Amino acid sequence: MEPIEKIWMKRYENEVLADIEDTVIKEYPLTIFLNGEELITLLCSPNALNYLAIGFLLSEGFAVVKEDILEIKTDETQGIIAVETRKKSELIKKLSGKRTITTGCGKGTTFYHVIDSFHSRIVKSSFEISPLEVLDLMKRFNKASELFQATGGVHSACLSDGKEIHLFHEDIGRHNAIDKIIGEAIWTGTSLNDKILITSGRISSEILIKAAKREIPMIISRSAPTNLVIQLGNELGITIIGFARGNRMNIYTAAHRVQC
Amino acid sequence: MEPIEKIWMKRYENEVLADIEDTVIKEYPLTIFLNGEELITLLCSPNALNYLAIGFLLSEGFAVVKEDILEIKTDETQGIIAVETRKKSELIKKLSGKRTITTGCGKGTTFYHVIDSFHSRIVKSSFEISPLEVLDLMKRFNKASELFQATGGVHSACLSDGKEIHLFHEDIGRHNAIDKIIGEAIWTGTSLNDKILITSGRISSEILIKAAKREIPMIISRSAPTNLVIQLGNELGITIIGFARGNRMNIYTAAHRVQC
Repeated sequence: MEPIEKIWMKRYENEVLADIEDTVIKEYPLTIFLNGEELITLLCSPNALNYLAIGFLLSEGFAVVKEDILEIKTDETQGIIAVETRKKSELIKKLSGKRTITTGCGKGTTFYHVIDSFHSRIVKSSFEISPLEVLDLMKRFNKASELFQATGGVHSACLSDGKEIHLFHEDIGRHNAIDKIIGEAIWTGTSLNDKILITSGRISSEILIKAAKREIPMIISRSAPTNLVIQLGNELGITIIGFARGNRMNIYTAAHRVQC
Repeated sequence: MEPIEKIWMKRYENEVLADIEDTVIKEYPLTIFLNGEELITLLCSPNALNYLAIGFLLSEGFAVVKEDILEIKTDETQGIIAVETRKKSELIKKLSGKRTITTGCGKGTTFYHVIDSFHSRIVKSSFEISPLEVLDLMKRFNKASELFQATGGVHSACLSDGKEIHLFHEDIGRHNAIDKIIGEAIWTGTSLNDKILITSGRISSEILIKAAKREIPMIISRSAPTNLVIQLGNELGITIIGFARGNRMNIYTAAHRVQC
């Protein structure tokens, strides 16, 4: 399957807004069934799916050597890969008591148990911002990330009303930095449905889902969104802005909130 | 807790190797207990731990509003945070049948069920490489990432013997790209214990663990490692090279494999 997709978006550059066709990366949900039981859904790029499933099972200890993998059946259109391994009981036993819930890096079930609720959660916020305000915020956001400047090893996230940076957090995990923002906002009673979420990392579906659950109307990143984020952003009415750097940005969805 | 740590490493720059004190980001395992039950271990930066736990529980649907959080007890030295929520049964019910295993983005239990096996898994490979070979490989590795050039949205990983790039994969997930490499290597009978793993992403403990399980002697990244990776790299005898770009690189552990 082609791992990229062509989409139309609005590019703002040096005070000019233009409709441009661009290429975005696909985000593909692959559900692994192990010996007939659903094991996990990985959000991945739709290529080398068999190697991904094998590598995942090896890394997680469900298989140790090639000979442990007896059979692999891939259904690309359904997004399902079924793997049969030997030493079934033994391998399952190894993981017993180690099960956990995750929003992990494109891994986990979050994707599924919220997707149903999307259609009833259109974000109707009348929040608006100008392109110059976005670019000025990004400059301040980038400056604020001292840990990153010190180590090059973290992601940062912030919550802003378009004028000021209200909450700012950093973490080695993209998802953690945003959970820290959401946690502080809810704990301190800071409203989210009239604010922008800014992240240093890629915008994947799980990032969008965290924002959608709190009805945050706009996500801005200096990095890229996936095709799934653009699809969901359109469905949910959430403004997605990527590659906001220097004098430019790409507006992928709900562009009416960006007023030139 | 201070989220960064000072370490000593060797910096190679313009054909000169020097011992330099540098700052690296801390990787901190935080185990969340929900209503007395162990829920998950997040690998995170050790600040705003209460907000991280609250945000995670909110994002995962264990809590919906602030009032659902009845009590939070944080034990920084133990890396434990215990949260009491109301509507216990109901909240747990919501997640039933959705439990899964993960290597997720610094999230999950992988960290724990392999850490025990570390001390018996010292990597003794006699593999060696010169700094110029490393930098030449990085140039070819960066060129090879066409998806990234097309979309800016993926990570890439490759397996090399120090001269050639044998396996190359890309994915929206750092972990997925490396699982694709390991999966293909095992499936095609490509040896791993005499090869280098190169990644475009940060080197976190879970990336090191994937390599350690296959006795890969060296990991190279154009990005940063965490303090935990440096600690484990020293214990396991795995060479960790970060910020390999242009004419420079940082050698954090097992520097004997880099021969000037």
